[in-house]
Amino acid sequence: MTSWIDDPAFAADRPFGPQTLPYGVVEGRDGPVVAVRVGDHALPLRPIAGAFGELAELVSADSLDPLLAAGRPVWSALRARLRELVTATAPPDGAVLLADARNLLPFTVGDYVDFYSSRDHAENVGRMFRPDSDPLLPNWTHLPVGYHGRAGTVVVSGTDIVRPHGQRKGDDGPVFGPSGRLDVEAEIGFVCGGPVARRVSTSAAPDHIFGVAVVNDWSARDIQAWEYVPLGPFLGKSFGTSIGAWITPLDAFAAARVPVPDPGHPRLDYLVEDQSWGLDIRLVVEWNGTVVSRPDFAGMAYSCAQQLAHLTVNGATVRPGDLFASGTVSGPERHQRGSFLELCWGGTEPITLDDGSERTFLADGDTVVITATAPGPDGSVVGLSEVRGTIVAAED
Amino acid sequence: MTSWIDDPAFAADRPFGPQTLPYGVVEGRDGPVVAVRVGDHALPLRPIAGAFGELAELVSADSLDPLLAAGRPVWSALRARLRELVTATAPPDGAVLLADARNLLPFTVGDYVDFYSSRDHAENVGRMFRPDSDPLLPNWTHLPVGYHGRAGTVVVSGTDIVRPHGQRKGDDGPVFGPSGRLDVEAEIGFVCGGPVARRVSTSAAPDHIFGVAVVNDWSARDIQAWEYVPLGPFLGKSFGTSIGAWITPLDAFAAARVPVPDPGHPRLDYLVEDQSWGLDIRLVVEWNGTVVSRPDFAGMAYSCAQQLAHLTVNGATVRPGDLFASGTVSGPERHQRGSFLELCWGGTEPITLDDGSERTFLADGDTVVITATAPGPDGSVVGLSEVRGTIVAAED
Repeated sequence: MTSWIDDPAFAADRPFGPQTLPYGVVEGRDGPVVAVRVGDHALPLRPIAGAFGELAELVSADSLDPLLAAGRPVWSALRARLRELVTATAPPDGAVLLADARNLLPFTVGDYVDFYSSRDHAENVGRMFRPDSDPLLPNWTHLPVGYHGRAGTVVVSGTDIVRPHGQRKGDDGPVFGPSGRLDVEAEIGFVCGGPVARRVSTSAAPDHIFGVAVVNDWSARDIQAWEYVPLGPFLGKSFGTSIGAWITPLDAFAAARVPVPDPGHPRLDYLVEDQSWGLDIRLVVEWNGTVVSRPDFAGMAYSCAQQLAHLTVNGATVRPGDLFASGTVSGPERHQRGSFLELCWGGTEPITLDDGSERTFLADGDTVVITATAPGPDGSVVGLSEVRGTIVAAED
Repeated sequence: MTSWIDDPAFAADRPFGPQTLPYGVVEGRDGPVVAVRVGDHALPLRPIAGAFGELAELVSADSLDPLLAAGRPVWSALRARLRELVTATAPPDGAVLLADARNLLPFTVGDYVDFYSSRDHAENVGRMFRPDSDPLLPNWTHLPVGYHGRAGTVVVSGTDIVRPHGQRKGDDGPVFGPSGRLDVEAEIGFVCGGPVARRVSTSAAPDHIFGVAVVNDWSARDIQAWEYVPLGPFLGKSFGTSIGAWITPLDAFAAARVPVPDPGHPRLDYLVEDQSWGLDIRLVVEWNGTVVSRPDFAGMAYSCAQQLAHLTVNGATVRPGDLFASGTVSGPERHQRGSFLELCWGGTEPITLDDGSERTFLADGDTVVITATAPGPDGSVVGLSEVRGTIVAAED
């Protein structure tokens, strides 16, 4: 290899070249270490902390927590230094193949909020869960509907998901047992950072969004359908939410920004953007190796900036480590639906995987992998690391 | 004073004698210190850590986090040692009057879950929010309905509550501004501890419940009514939740345990209790000094053990610092209603305070104080420290 950056694994037309540089945490010999993904390598930073000057302590931490708290000027400085290192030198010592690295959940999740910002998803679910009424509720076009999920069960990509038990509606009262309608939700998540803040405007939102990751909000539809009125989803969601191991900095999406669709009526002032924060991210959902869906994030009705402005407009604080996700990303076509509930229309329209098997909801042993990419600068591609999970049989 | 325990402030017929001994954190000269409330004094433990043997490090911490993680055997050992200290010696050095102590949020809140376990409250709200349908939904008698709230905005008693902004329904689309229907919810909260666990049975629940505190789940009813379908309450609740400064150990409630009411049908196995964990706690709600309600916790339909069993039955973990609250405590009589929404029936039946003023929802400057007591051993009374909050005008 002549130099680090000339290696094809890091070329700009690949999604994890120097235009991307996502952060994660890997298990090192002496415990967890902050690392950066470069191509198909994880580069732990603690062993080369001396190259980071006054940021040495930050990159030597055992999680991304101090970096999240440090704020945008530090994020920019560190990213600039990393790009220098990655593009100008031979590979630093200690880079390991991703296949040989064990990723850990890279930050302490504060509060986890899940939005519901795909119009197609909201309409599809409305048709199935509330067949006798208008699929889109009156508030939906005026605010990014959302709810709090369970932060303590956010897990890193690769963690097995145990099929949950719960109550579901039976013919003669509720019955209890393992969920029979286990599902995925392909989403984009936003990891918050910077100073603790309240009433964050859409224009200030980027100072409080550190980075972006793919999220799979596993959902037990039978549990959810029975429990969710009137206080919303609870145990149908709280058993596990997977997040990609590598958090791609928001800065990497400068070339991916697009306007959100026009809602067809004026927005309340606090939801107006002076810059567009919709993102042209394309997701790919694989079920046991078969690509079953290609949801398009650019069609989402609310941007991350609008979601954060809404989340905090009542005076609620946003803290470093808070995580919010977009809600299931679904488009108007069947092959763009980001949940199997929609893809198989409540179980009535099975899909056939490449191995010939038919599926509606998840079977034990099934593996789902969701990846995503976005346009990067100068024709490059920016990557979002996969979020992967395998279903394990329910405990007795 | 002859001895510490002979002081009338600590006599057993008062709610904060040696039968109670709740833990908190106060601001000391050298930063936050763990303390115990004895009568109307806060007793910081770090200055007398030498009296605690191998527990010295635990009581010298700057929050209750290490104690919560330590688990029930340590909780019992520490409580036994504290009772010896408090009942056998002259007052240890460093006790300060509560009026001179500044309380801090005593632990790091993990996940916050709010239940909805008062039948009268659920029926009252159902009648007001969904006047055209059955007030009690079909799932309610089969499971403790609940949802996740915002952990990052849980604040300690005494913290001012800023009136939240938000969207509410208008005649011609939503309007935005300060909430005009700001309310309280008088609840009992349970602070979790012990090892991280999944699928906690009702009989194991006490090993994961450290203590009990009064909670005021402030609610903006106009924001909530517009946003809450279909994913539940969000910004109508997330601006602030107040918790009492002193966490009373679960051990203190041995004489207060009562069966929960019979639901009128068999329970699913995982919700059956082999011991009763209903609690005979009586709450008192004061609005600007006028007692407006006396809700009775003994009538709640689900116990803390049932709530924790439900919360974790899907495989969700419970961690030290997780907090769950009972839901608004309301009884069948008007003077037992734990929210002003119910007490003033959606604003249509104002109540008159002692100063002659009429109120429906909260005005700027209003102060609400909620306290609670339970029967203790040998005819004593166990206290739950007040949760106090004053409404501050909305920011512009």
